[in-house]
Amino acid sequence: MKENQIFKGNIIFAPTPEEIKICAKSYVIVRNGIVEGIYDKLPEVYWREKVKDYDECLILPGFVDLHAHAPQFYQCGIGLDKELIDWLNDHTLPLENRFSDPVFAWEAYSQFANELIRQGTVRSCIFATIHKESTGLLFEILMEKGIGAFVGKINMDRNCADFLKEETETSILETEELIVKYGNHPLVKPILTPRFAPTSSDKLLSAIGELAKKYNLPVQSHLSENRSEVKWVSELFPFHSTYSDVYLDFGLFGQTPTLMAHGIHLTDRELELIKDNNVMLVHCPESNINIASGIMPVRKWLQKGIRIGLGSDVGAGHTLAMSKAVVRAIQLSKIMKVFDPQVRPLNTAEAFYMATRGGGSFFGKVGSFEKGYSFDAIVIEDDPGITGHLSLEERFQRFLYTGDDRSIIARFVAGRQIG
Amino acid sequence: MKENQIFKGNIIFAPTPEEIKICAKSYVIVRNGIVEGIYDKLPEVYWREKVKDYDECLILPGFVDLHAHAPQFYQCGIGLDKELIDWLNDHTLPLENRFSDPVFAWEAYSQFANELIRQGTVRSCIFATIHKESTGLLFEILMEKGIGAFVGKINMDRNCADFLKEETETSILETEELIVKYGNHPLVKPILTPRFAPTSSDKLLSAIGELAKKYNLPVQSHLSENRSEVKWVSELFPFHSTYSDVYLDFGLFGQTPTLMAHGIHLTDRELELIKDNNVMLVHCPESNINIASGIMPVRKWLQKGIRIGLGSDVGAGHTLAMSKAVVRAIQLSKIMKVFDPQVRPLNTAEAFYMATRGGGSFFGKVGSFEKGYSFDAIVIEDDPGITGHLSLEERFQRFLYTGDDRSIIARFVAGRQIG
Repeated sequence: MKENQIFKGNIIFAPTPEEIKICAKSYVIVRNGIVEGIYDKLPEVYWREKVKDYDECLILPGFVDLHAHAPQFYQCGIGLDKELIDWLNDHTLPLENRFSDPVFAWEAYSQFANELIRQGTVRSCIFATIHKESTGLLFEILMEKGIGAFVGKINMDRNCADFLKEETETSILETEELIVKYGNHPLVKPILTPRFAPTSSDKLLSAIGELAKKYNLPVQSHLSENRSEVKWVSELFPFHSTYSDVYLDFGLFGQTPTLMAHGIHLTDRELELIKDNNVMLVHCPESNINIASGIMPVRKWLQKGIRIGLGSDVGAGHTLAMSKAVVRAIQLSKIMKVFDPQVRPLNTAEAFYMATRGGGSFFGKVGSFEKGYSFDAIVIEDDPGITGHLSLEERFQRFLYTGDDRSIIARFVAGRQIG
Repeated sequence: MKENQIFKGNIIFAPTPEEIKICAKSYVIVRNGIVEGIYDKLPEVYWREKVKDYDECLILPGFVDLHAHAPQFYQCGIGLDKELIDWLNDHTLPLENRFSDPVFAWEAYSQFANELIRQGTVRSCIFATIHKESTGLLFEILMEKGIGAFVGKINMDRNCADFLKEETETSILETEELIVKYGNHPLVKPILTPRFAPTSSDKLLSAIGELAKKYNLPVQSHLSENRSEVKWVSELFPFHSTYSDVYLDFGLFGQTPTLMAHGIHLTDRELELIKDNNVMLVHCPESNINIASGIMPVRKWLQKGIRIGLGSDVGAGHTLAMSKAVVRAIQLSKIMKVFDPQVRPLNTAEAFYMATRGGGSFFGKVGSFEKGYSFDAIVIEDDPGITGHLSLEERFQRFLYTGDDRSIIARFVAGRQIG
């Protein structure tokens, strides 16, 4: 990787939410995995170098999935007729329990990682389970496969099935052990991951906040996914004025970089806290409709200046394909418009931005092909019999709506081809 | 086909909207393309006959798509950021105009038919364009490939782009020519297809109604897709009390079997007319959200006793995969629940029923494996590495949510394998 790479193709990316930038038949120069520049003609200094020519293909930033539960990959699409609590008790929790077995975990996490690659996800923020050993395996599988990720061992010491309930001290200790063991990889890193406020004691939340501070590590959790959860939190934490305040008080709300999945039902105070603390919300449209949580008022949150990325939320979302999360985010915003014609729906640029440069900002300079960005890319090949008469922008849209893993013929993370 | 066929596998179908019937490792006997019965042990009389053993695979009824625009297949996923009128003018109408060229039509319709087969659709109700010659080609392509279909040449003589506007007399004449030429095939049949009320003159609507009566042919059109359309119809037909009454007065609303796509915004009178005239509505969830038409209150319509099938509505819907229409119908009904917690969402059985036996009833005994039904089937193979621990019902759900054309390893229409 200590050299130049040159790729040629139709280069498409969203440097801002307002713009799909299209560089037809252009060259992208990559140095040590970082984009040096895009040129419509190859500068003379590179004439002697090898060019990987992807011809008519589209070269896009790889997808960033800001919220996925790796152990739930096996349950995608299953049991979704059930109410949330039955779905959790009948499917999710027994499945997560199986990750006490490292042999099962190795197999399941390998399948999960393979599917991430297949679907063109190059960076992902991942919940594992409470199990230290299998979470360690997940770190190692992702490192070996070259995917960029934040991986969190879940912390959970109350209000859950006994077989998934940790001793508070053990939870803290094992979390720190994983941080120490896996804290130094350039692409796969630990993230503090209390499942959500209701399943951690005050003592555990406090200790996780301390670990975030001590190791300067990011945090991920769930926030205001549905109304009964919000009500439950207010009962469990009667001295906190909002759900967000709970996390804030324990050092888990922007004191270090923070992701909060969902954020559908929020008060004005919470919106201010989120903005002022630079917390990033993760919109998970497929999950929100599969379990009837609600619809995030994305346009409204964006207008308030809140950062939003996209997540698959597998297994409540049933696919790791982030192209489908892009489409579903657009569709849900159109449904908002049905109920309130004043709301301007998301367009392709805005939703694609969320799934690339927007969400990618949690990883640093990721999700774009501007100079200085990590060369994280996917290469799209489509059927000229069908797309031959289309513009590049139309082919790009068509891939998002109708493409699948077969459309993706190459994947790169920081210049390294991973699939 | 004049003989018995015997298939073995895990046979799954919805004889009613309340039940997914699962016959594990069972035999289905087919005689002359018609299901004779399902047996868990092969009756002695068949012991000398050849059994096609699909082993662990699932055998499901093939999908029925009650509403697709064949010429729009090339525009799937394109231009969906635009408002409806721009989308039509910039993409749909210029594309439909290209079907004046039979060479283009042959290629495009072949691609469309191949995709139907790939996605496991065995029966489809199809809008072509106004063009007689290319509509004839569509009949022939579908016949040759063995798909079951109703095919309609569109009638349109006002309120549309000049290049797609027919002379009234020509429209009537050419429609009748196609009826005469293609009226006698067992699987591919003509259907009267005024695009929708606003684009046909009274004279044309009246003549189409006469043709339906004369040849005893079914009718398909659009009804109450969005509010501005409803308003427009009320302005164009000031002497009709509702949109449905327009069709009714011209003999196009149940006088022969009738499909109406959408039916989202309906008055009580219209709901009664629909029920009393046995008109079938076609719910097209993907299309409804892609172009922000609204959400059909499916539960409410069902409770009023209205028949509802599912449609892809390609190209406003972006995929011909009816498994995705099943999922999207469930998802939209869950969104209804978000806005009104009293509404019970659709479950898998109900939505799958709509896409098989429910919609199939428009074709006769289609969409089930009960005795006397046409053996229209798809065979599903999944990955035992992922689904090995799942029940048959879970594997079935997983296919609907996460499967694609690769999961389908065989397709049958009336006992004949078509892919």
